[in-house]
Amino acid sequence: MNEQQAIKPYVIGLDLGGTNSVFGIVDSRGEIKATTAIKTQGYDKVEDYVAASVEALQIIIDQVGGIEKIKAMGIGAPNANYYKGTIEHATNLSWGRGIVPLADMFSKALGIPVGMTNDANAAAIGEQAYGAARGMKNFIVITLGTGVGSGIVVNGQLLYGHDGFAGELGHVTMVREGGRPCGCGRTGCLEAYCSATGVARTARELLASTDRPSLLRELNPDQITSLDVSIAAGKGDEMANEIFQFTGKMLGEACADFAAFSSPEAFIFFGGLVKAGELIMKPIREAYNNHVMPIFRGKAQFLVSGLDGSSAAVLGASAIGWEIN
Amino acid sequence: MNEQQAIKPYVIGLDLGGTNSVFGIVDSRGEIKATTAIKTQGYDKVEDYVAASVEALQIIIDQVGGIEKIKAMGIGAPNANYYKGTIEHATNLSWGRGIVPLADMFSKALGIPVGMTNDANAAAIGEQAYGAARGMKNFIVITLGTGVGSGIVVNGQLLYGHDGFAGELGHVTMVREGGRPCGCGRTGCLEAYCSATGVARTARELLASTDRPSLLRELNPDQITSLDVSIAAGKGDEMANEIFQFTGKMLGEACADFAAFSSPEAFIFFGGLVKAGELIMKPIREAYNNHVMPIFRGKAQFLVSGLDGSSAAVLGASAIGWEIN
Repeated sequence: MNEQQAIKPYVIGLDLGGTNSVFGIVDSRGEIKATTAIKTQGYDKVEDYVAASVEALQIIIDQVGGIEKIKAMGIGAPNANYYKGTIEHATNLSWGRGIVPLADMFSKALGIPVGMTNDANAAAIGEQAYGAARGMKNFIVITLGTGVGSGIVVNGQLLYGHDGFAGELGHVTMVREGGRPCGCGRTGCLEAYCSATGVARTARELLASTDRPSLLRELNPDQITSLDVSIAAGKGDEMANEIFQFTGKMLGEACADFAAFSSPEAFIFFGGLVKAGELIMKPIREAYNNHVMPIFRGKAQFLVSGLDGSSAAVLGASAIGWEIN
Repeated sequence: MNEQQAIKPYVIGLDLGGTNSVFGIVDSRGEIKATTAIKTQGYDKVEDYVAASVEALQIIIDQVGGIEKIKAMGIGAPNANYYKGTIEHATNLSWGRGIVPLADMFSKALGIPVGMTNDANAAAIGEQAYGAARGMKNFIVITLGTGVGSGIVVNGQLLYGHDGFAGELGHVTMVREGGRPCGCGRTGCLEAYCSATGVARTARELLASTDRPSLLRELNPDQITSLDVSIAAGKGDEMANEIFQFTGKMLGEACADFAAFSSPEAFIFFGGLVKAGELIMKPIREAYNNHVMPIFRGKAQFLVSGLDGSSAAVLGASAIGWEIN
């Protein structure tokens, strides 16, 4: 522990999700000392959201000895611009239209530095600070949730690009002709196939296009989730296993392209879909080894997140606090 | 000019090609003060190659005032390992089998620091030092020659990855099913379509698979080059124009994926194929704008190399000399 950490041993992390805003006060080893939460929605104005946040935060700040014990705050949020500390055009947040200078607002309200980045970048910083990427300087975190996100670390630094928006690996094109529509407005993106919703969609397509038996036929097709597919695969269901094979193969082929870009020492997978374990990790590794350029073969590790699932997003956000001044 | 540049105002660049090894002594503005060359091949032992190089170099070193005027040497070479200063398994060089510590050998022979990287990375450093990327911190140089190479700069630094081999963008997979064989042993790579040899191959395939008239039919198919296609396109030949459309479209789609990775402010194209000018640049830009994620649209510039063609490779190699200590 260095001198500054002895004086200010904590950072605040905010995982700003579409439904809940979860706050944690975290020490340098990634231990969460106190936590609280408010609803993200229901505020017309961002000022009201920040005021409600600070009110909830004050209680846990007092628990750890007051604001003078806290070095900084990190926010992981959708549509976050790291360079400007703004949330931009987050139309799914009631107070998120236009350009919202959220980092500045929290900084003024709390009197500490505040940094902000998107969820996947926060996950990457969290893995580096407390998780599976400790000591690594070149790695890629791929988040498999509602969407597919990524945080890319090169030379020890998160890759932001010239505008702050680099690392959108969920939106490389994997199917160039006749690909699935993607939420980004284009077609064939990795996210359209390999997110949790993509996996459910693969299941619905397979069920509709074949007569093959499957445990998944017992479910309402419109309500099938990636968890249902995972459970069926765990019971040995052939179609469910095939869905994970298909998903993992595409992810492994995508990672082979990513290796040609930044040659990371590890790919770290994070998010709900990772709970399927070897069902998804094995086909990822196999497809990677079959498709990667020979010069990179056998060099990269394939890891699952080293952060505790329920608090991973808060930990990731908090880690931004150690990075800023 | 800083103090060190006043004392040691020059660097040596070596463009180590399969046929010729071209040396230049370069000042900080990218002006070549003296140049010489030897044949790359014909030496059984690397010691003999280095001795012949130093003998040729001594003459131009004396021309600029002696070795004490020279800060360092940079080498751009195939199969170069930046981290180790070695050439690895360059089976097409008579003295290049195994692992050759070429940077160390030149450093001992000349008494100055020597750095080495591959040709495309050297081009990227050259563009940053003297060319189209001056002042840029995030850009990608794509070399379109016998192969497709790339040098990626992020946060002002060349991206080497954990093993020194990052930035092999010629080997992302663009055609996932039934793609062309590539020199790397896989299929469907960008390089198999968009290198100069890929363009010639596209021409041969189109000529063989259709009866359409074309100026290219006047040539021996086996000897068609990308320059022939460029000349025919310049005369308004429809098939030749279609070949550039096809090539540029694939490059533009690839760049759209690269934007999702590192969000560069510019893509800079370098090498023989770039001489086709707007014939290739226009379809690249169009395909990029049609395929890139909306968040990146309209942000990146598409530039051609700012380095003088005949000396670009030497300039790029020399620029490594400014980077090392």
